Amino acid sequence: MKLVRHFRDFTWDDVDVLAYKDGGPYKDVTRQVLFEGQDALPAQWRYFEVAPGGHSTLERHEHLHNVLILRGRGQCLVDGVVSDIGEHDLVHVPSLSWHQFRAAADAPLGFLCLVASERDRPQLPAEADLAELRRNPAVATFIRP
Amino acid sequence: MKLVRHFRDFTWDDVDVLAYKDGGPYKDVTRQVLFEGQDALPAQWRYFEVAPGGHSTLERHEHLHNVLILRGRGQCLVDGVVSDIGEHDLVHVPSLSWHQFRAAADAPLGFLCLVASERDRPQLPAEADLAELRRNPAVATFIRP
Repeated sequence: MKLVRHFRDFTWDDVDVLAYKDGGPYKDVTRQVLFEGQDALPAQWRYFEVAPGGHSTLERHEHLHNVLILRGRGQCLVDGVVSDIGEHDLVHVPSLSWHQFRAAADAPLGFLCLVASERDRPQLPAEADLAELRRNPAVATFIRP
Repeated sequence: MKLVRHFRDFTWDDVDVLAYKDGGPYKDVTRQVLFEGQDALPAQWRYFEVAPGGHSTLERHEHLHNVLILRGRGQCLVDGVVSDIGEHDLVHVPSLSWHQFRAAADAPLGFLCLVASERDRPQLPAEADLAELRRNPAVATFIRP
């Protein structure tokens, strides 16, 4: 690996722009792995970009996310609360919190997301989970299952 | 901890601006801990800012650094090579590499730096280390021990 990798237009030297995930409901999201986890630093550091009007998957998992918004603006659902988010804001997604990121209609939402190298697979909401989430009108309006 | 923390002028809600370190040679550097490591994600995520003309400590350690430049520009020494660095460039500091970050004379250098929660203390260069580093003229000009 080159030790210094330069940035241009939200891509980096020797970093592939990948599909966000193989399947699962989402719209207009890409993924780039900036740093693979190593034994001595067991955390994978990724950059995701949600195009204007797009959204990540509504999901939850045991593992935590630490997020820093690098570009643009939008909203996120974390732990039952919908928040406006913009450049350099921080988001912590606790274990087993339902969460989803959406870009604004007129701006992308690009964010750094840190996860443990060893982690469980995301869970998608069942009908009962969606019914529970929709009891909060703000959440009901926000989510894109 | 608030799950969403907003950014303003390179500070964040509920994040203290700290001294870079208690002692050791450096000039005009601050530290902010954006995310403490947790058992489930054992990596601490910090933001350092080097003021124009300032520099971090010339040091090495067993633990790795993964770095993303968030603001400004400058240069870094990593593993015997001096590189220009600017916004959103990535830097990987391998185990036991001598490294130092310097801001440009007319711009700050602010960067995200990821480390394992459990890590060894930095080592400072002895005279023999400095003599070895100075065999490369570019490195000799760059370093501020």
